[in-house]
Formats: sequence, C-alpha cells, structure tokens
Amino acid sequence: MIDWIAFDADDTLWRNEEYYLAGRNRFLEILQKYGLDAADIGNFDQFEVENIQYFGYGVMSFVLSMIEIGIEITKQEIHPSDIQELIRLAKEMLSHETEVFDGVNQMLEELSARYPLMLITKGDLLHQQRKFAASGLAHYFRAIEVVSDKSPGVYEGILNHYDIEPERFLMIGNSLRSDILPVLELGSWAIHLADHPTWSHEDDPAEHLDHDRYLEVEGISQVLGKLTEANLLAR
Amino acid sequence: MIDWIAFDADDTLWRNEEYYLAGRNRFLEILQKYGLDAADIGNFDQFEVENIQYFGYGVMSFVLSMIEIGIEITKQEIHPSDIQELIRLAKEMLSHETEVFDGVNQMLEELSARYPLMLITKGDLLHQQRKFAASGLAHYFRAIEVVSDKSPGVYEGILNHYDIEPERFLMIGNSLRSDILPVLELGSWAIHLADHPTWSHEDDPAEHLDHDRYLEVEGISQVLGKLTEANLLAR
Repeated sequence: MIDWIAFDADDTLWRNEEYYLAGRNRFLEILQKYGLDAADIGNFDQFEVENIQYFGYGVMSFVLSMIEIGIEITKQEIHPSDIQELIRLAKEMLSHETEVFDGVNQMLEELSARYPLMLITKGDLLHQQRKFAASGLAHYFRAIEVVSDKSPGVYEGILNHYDIEPERFLMIGNSLRSDILPVLELGSWAIHLADHPTWSHEDDPAEHLDHDRYLEVEGISQVLGKLTEANLLAR
Repeated sequence: MIDWIAFDADDTLWRNEEYYLAGRNRFLEILQKYGLDAADIGNFDQFEVENIQYFGYGVMSFVLSMIEIGIEITKQEIHPSDIQELIRLAKEMLSHETEVFDGVNQMLEELSARYPLMLITKGDLLHQQRKFAASGLAHYFRAIEVVSDKSPGVYEGILNHYDIEPERFLMIGNSLRSDILPVLELGSWAIHLADHPTWSHEDDPAEHLDHDRYLEVEGISQVLGKLTEANLLAR
C-alpha cells in the first residue's frame, strides 16, 4: 500500500532541539550580565518566526535573531565580545556531532529493505547535508530533499518529482505542523513521534487529529510495530 | 548532441555581485567612523572563504563575516548600532528585487523550446528560491537544484538523479571555478560568460582553458549564436 517512506531529520532521527535550548540558555547567561532575564526577552519565538521570512530556518537565523534581540533589549549596551560569543555559538552548533537516537539504525535497516526511503528536512542547506553525511545513515536513503519550508505545496512538488501517488506515501516526523498536517492534507499517511522534543513553533496543539491515515507513536522504537499493526509493513 | 542545458543563477541570469560590492562599501563606511579603511580589513575574501565551512555561501555568511571582522579589527570598539546596521543590510540584500539581465528572457524563450532547462545555484536556500520565483523565469525551467557547493561530485549526483549522460549536458555560467571547470572534468559541455561580474573566489585565472567542450562568450546575447556556431543548437 506504500511505495515510499520519508523521514524528517532534526529531532526525528537525531538530536537537535537540545542544542537550541542550550544556545538559548547561553544567551540568557549573557543577558544576566546586563541585569536582564527571560522575561525581558519577550516572545523570542515570535521574533524568530518573523525573521524566518528573511533568514529561513536554522542556526544562522537563530543566532542572527539573538544578536538582534540582544542589541535591542540592552538598549545597545551589549558588549561586542558578547556578540562574538554568539557567533562562536553559531559555529559550534553548525559543527557539533550528529547524535543519532537509539533505535534509529535498526528501524532504518528493516525499513530500507522493504521501501525506498527519503529524507525531507528543512534548515541551513549545508548544515543539513553535513549532518546527513555525518550521521552514518546516508546509505539507508535513496534521496534527500532539503527544503526551505514544509508546506503542502512543497510536499506536492516532491511527490510529483519522484512520481509518487500521495496515498502511497508515508511521512514520519516529530512536528505536527511540518511533517504531519501537510501530508495528511495531500492524502498521504503520517506517523507522529509524539514524545520527541519539538520546538513550540512546530507543534500545533489546537489540532486534534482524527484522520484515517494518521498514526501516532511515542518514539522510534514503536514505528515498526505500528506499521505492522496498521497492515502497512511490506514483506 | 545535448539533452539538458543547465544555468547558474547569480551573476549569470540576474544581478548579484553588485549587491555584495555595495554591502562591502557600506561596511567600509562604518569602519571609517573608527579610523579604519580597506587595508585594515586585510584579506576579507580569505576570511569569508574560511567561514564557508560553517555558514556556506550566501548573504548570511557574508554578513556574519562582516560582523566578526568588524568586532575584531575595531578591537571590540564597534558600536552595537553598527552591528544592527549590518543585520539590516542582510535583510535588505535578502529581500531586494531580482534584476534579470537584458537578453535573458529571449534566450530562455528560444532554448526552452528546444531543451529541458535546469537551474543549478548555490547560496542561502530560501534566498535562491525566492529570487527564482521573483525572476519571472521559473516557467522556462524543468528543474531547480540549490546546492551547498559546486564540486564535480555534486554535478555528478545531479546528472545521475536526472539520468543525464555527462557528454549530453551543457552548463552555462559566469564562474570558472563553480560552473565551468567541474563540468568539464565530468566530460560535459560548458559556456563561460566571461564579461559578467564575478566574485574573485569564483574565478580561476590560473587555468587556461583549452578544451574541446569549452566555449566562451562575452555575455548572454551571444549564447544562441555560439551554440549555433558549435552545431549544438537543436532545431
């Protein structure tokens, strides 16, 4: 019933959100020197989301937003050495090791024997490609698509490009907003990894999902079982 | 003899380098306030090229490099408002109009009637996609590939993906280093737009090109004539 299975990457196959949380904490430590705290930042997520129109998703966007906010809320009192520190943080985040979640290898080993697998990820192009190469998972995948946004139209473009029928496509990921809702809208299947850490912007708690082609698991270790249970696992 | 023609985008189909030169000038104006000039910056290109390993190619990389250099050479005396100014510059560069060169429309009109065309471009993913959409040229192209680097391996991956024989592929662009040399190495054809503005890092003046499948023109208006002359223009 399924011709292709696609995976999200960040926070689906490997750690990601933790690095952003650690980066945010480092930013807070810097701000403390100026007598400021989290409340003074205001809605960081909102600020960052507004910057996506310019910078897209990813580490560079995140760090440029922190520099902007840092200058603004310190009323231009922030010391340039602290901005240097934020750029150092960007370089660290862009070159850290890729920590693949437990169980991912085994799952991909099993699934790649049965289906062509694709990676669909958004963020800094170079960073995403580097993590993919460093993950040791590349040989499981037939294709990788780094996209600037995960809208239904973008998924539609990918399905057309690979000549995949929407109802024979399954996407697995941690983000309701990016990995699940757009593919359900196209008539595809989706498995949500509900217990994986997820940036608030990527969640969509307003949505209650009651959909024939929607499956939910807690984490990676349950994916194979869920596919079997739903009679979706090819032999 | 040719199955696919691919184009570079920045400085091949539309203006790009000028925006970087203007950005660099704005940076110099800022530095003048601190009694510094171009000589104090040292080898900006080299600095930027070293940052490519982290930030890749594009506007964000360029502006993060300027911020880093600005802090360093002012010995951390640069005022945060000047860093704000550089981030504003990034946003401007990322959202400016796409100015297509004269003659591009006519050439693509003619070529797209004869060949499937592809765009192969590097830089910030979102920015490249936005320029492509804003250019009004998208309907001429069958495919767009935004890549993080233009090595022979990357071109090889694209040729495999689209099932194109190297000797039936032609690439047109302004950069010897990125558009011409790697495809010649694969056995493909290349047309160099010699008079288009090009970032120094993208040129390779050491290379004298004497190659069967290498063609050179001054600019866009000569592409059709050169293809005809080389007996490469399908009817």
